[in-house]
Amino acid sequence: MGIIVQKYGGTSVAGPERIQKVAARVCRAVDAGNQVVVVVSAQGDTTDQLLEMARAISPRPPKRELDMLLATGEQISIALLAMAIDALGYKVISLTGAQGGIMTDEHHTKAKIRKVNGERITTELKRGAIVIVAGFQGVTADNNITTLGRGGSDTTAVAVAAALQADICEIYTDVAGVYSADPRMVPDARLLPEVGYDEMLELASLGALILQPRAVEVAAIYGVPLHVRSSFQDCPGTIVREVEDVEKAVSVTGVASDDNCAQITIIGVPQEVNTLQLVFASLAEEGINVDMIVKASGRAATTNLSFTVQRSDLQSALEAIHHLPGAGQWEISANEDVAKVSIVGAGMMTNPGVAAAMFDVLAEEGVPVELVTTSEIKVSCLVPRKRLKDAVSSCHRRFCLHEAK
Amino acid sequence: MGIIVQKYGGTSVAGPERIQKVAARVCRAVDAGNQVVVVVSAQGDTTDQLLEMARAISPRPPKRELDMLLATGEQISIALLAMAIDALGYKVISLTGAQGGIMTDEHHTKAKIRKVNGERITTELKRGAIVIVAGFQGVTADNNITTLGRGGSDTTAVAVAAALQADICEIYTDVAGVYSADPRMVPDARLLPEVGYDEMLELASLGALILQPRAVEVAAIYGVPLHVRSSFQDCPGTIVREVEDVEKAVSVTGVASDDNCAQITIIGVPQEVNTLQLVFASLAEEGINVDMIVKASGRAATTNLSFTVQRSDLQSALEAIHHLPGAGQWEISANEDVAKVSIVGAGMMTNPGVAAAMFDVLAEEGVPVELVTTSEIKVSCLVPRKRLKDAVSSCHRRFCLHEAK
Repeated sequence: MGIIVQKYGGTSVAGPERIQKVAARVCRAVDAGNQVVVVVSAQGDTTDQLLEMARAISPRPPKRELDMLLATGEQISIALLAMAIDALGYKVISLTGAQGGIMTDEHHTKAKIRKVNGERITTELKRGAIVIVAGFQGVTADNNITTLGRGGSDTTAVAVAAALQADICEIYTDVAGVYSADPRMVPDARLLPEVGYDEMLELASLGALILQPRAVEVAAIYGVPLHVRSSFQDCPGTIVREVEDVEKAVSVTGVASDDNCAQITIIGVPQEVNTLQLVFASLAEEGINVDMIVKASGRAATTNLSFTVQRSDLQSALEAIHHLPGAGQWEISANEDVAKVSIVGAGMMTNPGVAAAMFDVLAEEGVPVELVTTSEIKVSCLVPRKRLKDAVSSCHRRFCLHEAK
Repeated sequence: MGIIVQKYGGTSVAGPERIQKVAARVCRAVDAGNQVVVVVSAQGDTTDQLLEMARAISPRPPKRELDMLLATGEQISIALLAMAIDALGYKVISLTGAQGGIMTDEHHTKAKIRKVNGERITTELKRGAIVIVAGFQGVTADNNITTLGRGGSDTTAVAVAAALQADICEIYTDVAGVYSADPRMVPDARLLPEVGYDEMLELASLGALILQPRAVEVAAIYGVPLHVRSSFQDCPGTIVREVEDVEKAVSVTGVASDDNCAQITIIGVPQEVNTLQLVFASLAEEGINVDMIVKASGRAATTNLSFTVQRSDLQSALEAIHHLPGAGQWEISANEDVAKVSIVGAGMMTNPGVAAAMFDVLAEEGVPVELVTTSEIKVSCLVPRKRLKDAVSSCHRRFCLHEAK
């Protein structure tokens, strides 16, 4: 008898019929002899409705109160799912993030999980109950309710799986699994049966939007195998786990795309002082994630700096930068019409020339490249947003990703 | 500088404009130099909407999960009100029942407050914040969320006021105060400027529907003065406090009506055994409140028993009784077409003949009386529901309640 953690997203629990289907699937896992913990998100567009209620009251609601408000979304889901499971005759209990021991830092609306106190969950499992935990939310040491930011339910599921040493963490979603590229952009994109944590991490953080990168990171650290599956069809999905044989790995696994980014360029940053540190520290303080960073090198007294943030963070980022000492001397500009295309593959580190092939195909396609960053298993290019689809398709074709390896 | 607890009901916070009005009123109390704690209910018909969601999932949802679901209603209200107060530039923090230290028993959907741990509230007041506490909800010692049953927000407010030794507990409602009878039934009903706890208790529990009787009980025990006021108009309202001079008290203060009752009659209950105790213990176990109880006395081997419950509890009550040992031998009948009319007044105990005057006027009016119960400060009669209005009007007229005393 193993422990399974199942996570269902907002679309999977939108409406009573879907909740009843999820309940049936949960009970099947119990019938198969497992102890089951279920992590659920808020129903469909509940979070958006709640945000709208907040906006009707105040243009800038305090983040702590926003968390108080948003946390009700999952609380509704867990209660309804528990009712549906109870109606099927199974023992069940729902727990809010606080009750489930999801301890976070104090960073309201973007909190990070510090620890999962799994005692209550374990006690309930031992009592023979199916345990339903609210995703996306937690509680600080001072007993204030926090949310983890959008998509945080994945992280909750993986953190719970790690704390319970679960056998697997199943992520149910509205797609069939992880594809070699976004199928909306590349019609012959292929479902990948298995990917490594690192690959998934790059695919997720680069905009595959299936799994939160934080969730994959936690899974990699604690060695929790993930199973990404459709909650609507019964199909094999994608297993995410440690890829053991790097030599066997193909050079490029997939092409990721991210059109939720914006570029900030600062011209005239002094070379000698700690300006870079100041810039990124001020962004970190606001909880803004910076992605691609390119700094021109040279011997001049000043240099230029360019980086990307999530588009929704652009205004806060610009404000933070304008408040820095010396910012009056800089030329600061922003570009929202950019997108990022990335090729990802654990085999890239042993296959030279992959980056060159990518630049080649983008040049052939006439797609200008604004910024480039690379890691051992990915190459990313910032391109004009309106050329994103061309960039993704041409890379997918160039690396023959429509063919099974 | 005093501590004021203000309680706003669901209609007072239905929609952003009303929430902003409540926020302005709260801030006025702060400007007047008070420390303010606000207790709020769920917005308008939120609770009904949540119950509908539950019914779409399961005909008999587990009560613990119902509480998990319903508690989101007030959590939304407190967050939105905090945002509105913050927007006015005041320091504010919202607390769920659990965070506010509202400790209850384990009786889900009808929990009773055991204790208010006021530490968190006091700490936040000392920080200079307006504290908003979710009404209607609490938490058990095992950290499960409970609700206090409909109208429980009043009880939360009074319990918090008692714990903080507040100067006054203001109950904002959609009526102007406590009337000598339901103004919908008696057009010349009069607003009472002041009533005693006992009178209010009888008026409330007999269907005045303005204040929860549990709230009045707690207020009486701890000597918390209540101020019942309209949240829409600025008018004096009704003060509820200890009436010191009983001699001065008028014989009848008001006529209460309750059309949310049902009568159960059991014929053939054995005299000798502890059947009565069994019947009422089984109802208590289900959390069903029994109101009027009349047992025929005599020397026969069996007796007849008649009592009333809330109409919504009728089915559960009948089920509980049918499960009792020996119930097969009894003749059990129910009547939903009944209502209760009561005359209430602290001066009744020193004015004999009041009950006789009530029976007189009902007989004159041709209203049949099914059951009668009396206490020191009230006389109640169960009458056919369709004659309730006639009964109330005639009593109101008979005791000259339209005239100021």
